Amino acid sequence: MLVVMKAQASPEEIQAVCKHIEQLGFRAHPLPGAQRTAIGITGNQGEVDRGNLEELSGVAEVIRVSKAYKLASRDVKEEDTIIRFAGTDAAIGDRSLAIIAGPCSVESREQAFSIAEQVAASGAQFFRGGAYKPRTSPYAFQGLGLDALKILSEIREKFGLRIVTEAIDSQSLELVAEWADVIQIGARNMQNFSLLKHAGRLRKPVMIKRGLSATLEEFLMAAEYVMSEGNYQVILCERGVRTFADHARNTLDLSIIPAVRRLSHLPILVDPSHATGKRDSVLPMARAAVASGADGILVEVHDHPEMALSDGPQSIYPIQFARMMDELEQIAPVVARTLPRGISAEAAK
Amino acid sequence: MLVVMKAQASPEEIQAVCKHIEQLGFRAHPLPGAQRTAIGITGNQGEVDRGNLEELSGVAEVIRVSKAYKLASRDVKEEDTIIRFAGTDAAIGDRSLAIIAGPCSVESREQAFSIAEQVAASGAQFFRGGAYKPRTSPYAFQGLGLDALKILSEIREKFGLRIVTEAIDSQSLELVAEWADVIQIGARNMQNFSLLKHAGRLRKPVMIKRGLSATLEEFLMAAEYVMSEGNYQVILCERGVRTFADHARNTLDLSIIPAVRRLSHLPILVDPSHATGKRDSVLPMARAAVASGADGILVEVHDHPEMALSDGPQSIYPIQFARMMDELEQIAPVVARTLPRGISAEAAK
Amino acid sequence: MLVVMKAQASPEEIQAVCKHIEQLGFRAHPLPGAQRTAIGITGNQGEVDRGNLEELSGVAEVIRVSKAYKLASRDVKEEDTIIRFAGTDAAIGDRSLAIIAGPCSVESREQAFSIAEQVAASGAQFFRGGAYKPRTSPYAFQGLGLDALKILSEIREKFGLRIVTEAIDSQSLELVAEWADVIQIGARNMQNFSLLKHAGRLRKPVMIKRGLSATLEEFLMAAEYVMSEGNYQVILCERGVRTFADHARNTLDLSIIPAVRRLSHLPILVDPSHATGKRDSVLPMARAAVASGADGILVEVHDHPEMALSDGPQSIYPIQFARMMDELEQIAPVVARTLPRGISAEAAK
Amino acid sequence: MLVVMKAQASPEEIQAVCKHIEQLGFRAHPLPGAQRTAIGITGNQGEVDRGNLEELSGVAEVIRVSKAYKLASRDVKEEDTIIRFAGTDAAIGDRSLAIIAGPCSVESREQAFSIAEQVAASGAQFFRGGAYKPRTSPYAFQGLGLDALKILSEIREKFGLRIVTEAIDSQSLELVAEWADVIQIGARNMQNFSLLKHAGRLRKPVMIKRGLSATLEEFLMAAEYVMSEGNYQVILCERGVRTFADHARNTLDLSIIPAVRRLSHLPILVDPSHATGKRDSVLPMARAAVASGADGILVEVHDHPEMALSDGPQSIYPIQFARMMDELEQIAPVVARTLPRGISAEAAK
Repeated sequence: MLVVMKAQASPEEIQAVCKHIEQLGFRAHPLPGAQRTAIGITGNQGEVDRGNLEELSGVAEVIRVSKAYKLASRDVKEEDTIIRFAGTDAAIGDRSLAIIAGPCSVESREQAFSIAEQVAASGAQFFRGGAYKPRTSPYAFQGLGLDALKILSEIREKFGLRIVTEAIDSQSLELVAEWADVIQIGARNMQNFSLLKHAGRLRKPVMIKRGLSATLEEFLMAAEYVMSEGNYQVILCERGVRTFADHARNTLDLSIIPAVRRLSHLPILVDPSHATGKRDSVLPMARAAVASGADGILVEVHDHPEMALSDGPQSIYPIQFARMMDELEQIAPVVARTLPRGISAEAAK
Repeated sequence: MLVVMKAQASPEEIQAVCKHIEQLGFRAHPLPGAQRTAIGITGNQGEVDRGNLEELSGVAEVIRVSKAYKLASRDVKEEDTIIRFAGTDAAIGDRSLAIIAGPCSVESREQAFSIAEQVAASGAQFFRGGAYKPRTSPYAFQGLGLDALKILSEIREKFGLRIVTEAIDSQSLELVAEWADVIQIGARNMQNFSLLKHAGRLRKPVMIKRGLSATLEEFLMAAEYVMSEGNYQVILCERGVRTFADHARNTLDLSIIPAVRRLSHLPILVDPSHATGKRDSVLPMARAAVASGADGILVEVHDHPEMALSDGPQSIYPIQFARMMDELEQIAPVVARTLPRGISAEAAK
Repeated sequence: MLVVMKAQASPEEIQAVCKHIEQLGFRAHPLPGAQRTAIGITGNQGEVDRGNLEELSGVAEVIRVSKAYKLASRDVKEEDTIIRFAGTDAAIGDRSLAIIAGPCSVESREQAFSIAEQVAASGAQFFRGGAYKPRTSPYAFQGLGLDALKILSEIREKFGLRIVTEAIDSQSLELVAEWADVIQIGARNMQNFSLLKHAGRLRKPVMIKRGLSATLEEFLMAAEYVMSEGNYQVILCERGVRTFADHARNTLDLSIIPAVRRLSHLPILVDPSHATGKRDSVLPMARAAVASGADGILVEVHDHPEMALSDGPQSIYPIQFARMMDELEQIAPVVARTLPRGISAEAAK
Repeated sequence: MLVVMKAQASPEEIQAVCKHIEQLGFRAHPLPGAQRTAIGITGNQGEVDRGNLEELSGVAEVIRVSKAYKLASRDVKEEDTIIRFAGTDAAIGDRSLAIIAGPCSVESREQAFSIAEQVAASGAQFFRGGAYKPRTSPYAFQGLGLDALKILSEIREKFGLRIVTEAIDSQSLELVAEWADVIQIGARNMQNFSLLKHAGRLRKPVMIKRGLSATLEEFLMAAEYVMSEGNYQVILCERGVRTFADHARNTLDLSIIPAVRRLSHLPILVDPSHATGKRDSVLPMARAAVASGADGILVEVHDHPEMALSDGPQSIYPIQFARMMDELEQIAPVVARTLPRGISAEAAK
């Protein structure tokens, strides 16, 4: 259910409607728009009585939302969601492309700083690097944990890069929320509903990677889990799905980009590194992602991929990253985008 | 790495080898067999030096395990793993078929008792019922939680049925381990590695359902996560995978049964309810599962499926369950199995 | 559209209705049932006018068939289709299980005779063996062609086995129809519509193998192509579909058996050899297929699989085939079937 | 096996080597390159003796080709294959993008001419339109056949567009080869090996669409079937594969583009219309295809898609096609391509 407020509704009227909804045992989600505010109603105790709501002061109309996802739906919020980062001009979801680059795992302070310096020099605004690694084998490198988070934090200080890193459980989630700028939920946790709800109670942007066999509806429902708890800063990320095809690690499904655009206001990025698993396919797929309308790219960069503790074969070299940035810059105007290069003076302070 | 002890090795010698392994910074997993004990060595700090181990007293030989999964591999433990339940003759993995039946969710004391009574009457030895439900939508029924666990515990008391129920996060895991007999890890959590490790530190049997697009190796690696923490009582459960086919909710992949048998000593059950999502396909697939060599069946039974809060269309009626038991009893001898009917006098006390 | 005739309608009335339909530019398909005859109407020139038909003598009612497949649908023909073979008691689709066994390819007269003798001794009623092989590589063994058909024909004479072999194009189709008893259309040709139509103009039973990624509807539409040309003797065969799973050559989808049963009157067999690609998975899957309700089994048997020119690793030994027959015989009664053993005296003459 | 001739080898020497190969019962495939000629050897009678060949005059070396596909492999021919069309500057596989546009089916002379005029005006050099339609249902529109071929031929005369249309069996193949410029083999016939071999005996370019669940190796083996018969003018076309994803008709697998580039010298196009099945996804996927390095686009255009006899929902309007051309023209330089607009004066004569 969605309460659409009149354009001239006062903050007090909006607050009163929210309070009324909460008293009925539901949750109210005020969603400010360019013209007017809408209030999403969620809860699992059946349906709200429509009549009463329509009579409250400042209410324009009450609309039933038929889709399984409510808050993630474009029916509920028409304008694109833009995630901004205080003290910087970096953004995800506006007309600038968001480029998130860095190694699969933070392996050492040296390694991370060296790569950060190079991707910053090429114009990245976000840095990625795993502190907690969800590995198929219990015997594989599991990440440096808190030490890695501290290194990432230093990188933010030094290079002005915003930090994106993965949380794999409640404990790491709290730490990532404290030290990083964007909380990544990995593909294997896309339906770890406890983790999603926990992330929904935090106030840091959450980037959800698509599950290996997730449908579009399930993908949006994962976002809904986070949003239903009050955290509306959700970013989607396509990273390939699992199919019979064996020429790439996964099958990158770019047709989800226009489909998400139709149904949801949330930004969507593409990870060509995990999607292909092959260095020489990363640039072609990064170009294709931007051409298909993605809001940005998440890409693995390593200066010595042959020595990487994880995902070496899919990491591109810094020089390839520089070339990628040049290519994306050329494609951007075709999709009415720009590629911001480097960190603004203010942010880099 | 696997240390095979001599047949006549003493408990002290076994303990000494384990201690030596732990001192090297690895983990020792003593695995008693019919003839002799083997000791699995795991850890992610590289490889143990073979030479030293071979010289320890009581050691027959040291073998390199080439598969990604070690403790789950038949190379490491040749005999089938059998899970037994104290104070009962119920078992999973021996020549008797394990039948786990009950509703998708515990909805009320009445509903659960009514179904339990009927499945017990037909000869089930295990009762299933969700207390914590991982639902695609945050607005769907999420389970009765602790109240459900208490109801399940009463069912064990009253009918002698062993209880199987799902844990979805750390908190529910502790509670399920306390109140139930088998901890279920759902398909969507098959690669929730934190949850698997946590379950590995408990001493209750863990049933892992195959992920929607999990390969056999990933499935066994999930078991390995639990076992690497010292809990060797792991049960696998095939429940269908996601494919293009649209005539069933999932595609039941029975060919994994002989494949698991080849590679692992762990028992494997089949869930024909989630695999098909259609009541009239459940019996045919249950029969097929037993005929293909599965160690048992996990099946949803509801006396009023049209009123079920979840998974109604795939729940069979108690009368169909009774018929299923008769059919499985007839098929069992072909695969050198028996179908135990009802709870033994001792257990039901 | 379906014209249901009155129970007491005369052959002349049936013929008159058919003639009327043909004059309207459509095709009439008289389908005799236990109680009364129905007449299917097909064609792609829009819809027949219902009113006129209902007024014809002997017509009980005219029903619109909403499914994409008409003649293959159980809505149009309620009773199971049974394929019989003149001069023998072998049948496909009745309560006896149809067992089709033999090598992937006919390699020589000796090889084929030796295998035929052994499968006949174990009770098979049908012999399979490829004369024309659709091979992924143009450089692989393509079959002995007409020479193989002649060998197969001798096998029928000598052992009383009915012959099933594949046609791959118009030319081989005509020859197979001439020399064999059942024309096999391979998985890769399931949507070779020209070939299906051509087979529909012949009067030999046609066995269609499910395409590697065919939905159930597409599978039934392939049957419909054959039937729309007037050949109603169609047999379906599940042989595994292509998925991400890598522990078997294909993923055997047994849940299609109850689904076909619901929607269609056509018999359905299962090929556990191509489905798994692994010798030691063939017996478990053959048992599972019969337990799930299949009408029979198509299985590859070779006495020297290590020397087979194609599909060696999935061919079972004659001794395994004998064991399979014993196992299937035990499972048959559970699904209200019998397993006929050997050829009747009359047939073997 | 591959015979690499010396750079200075004479035509007579090349011919002598070919003759020698044929006398051994194999097939010789002379493949002229920029520097020197290579001669592919194919056949299924085992292996040629290497020693003798190396001693023939003009031979530089004899190389064993380990891949299953030989003639399609870049190991055998390093330079990209370029398909040229006499009397026109249109080409497929060079640095210009090939744009093939037109309706799914030729429905009438008027419809085809109207669309052809508009796509020609926007700069297409190739026209597509189905004369023979492989339809899932035998009751669906099957195409106008020869009448359509004649209309297409008139379109070539009038607008200078090269004609691409599908053949579905031997009979239509001969006609298409006679009337059109490129023979299309549809996805459902990708493993119709008889049809592929027949196409290999013709001397018209053949465009093979990827099968719904074809691996890259199978895709290249389909090309190999055509080439093994002596027709080396083969074009590949990615058109989406079948997966669980339900937000598009198929899952467009663009990562096959760089993979094909690595392994084969054959050109590869992308069909965003069949891949997505949705009009508003066609332009994003067309842009993505070119950005990923495809050699061109095959796209369905219809001026009244709501009245189309097939595939209306995925056909774009001529005005969208014009916009697509503008967008692709902007992306082309990033991948070192150009987008030729319109037919050259000479060609249009």
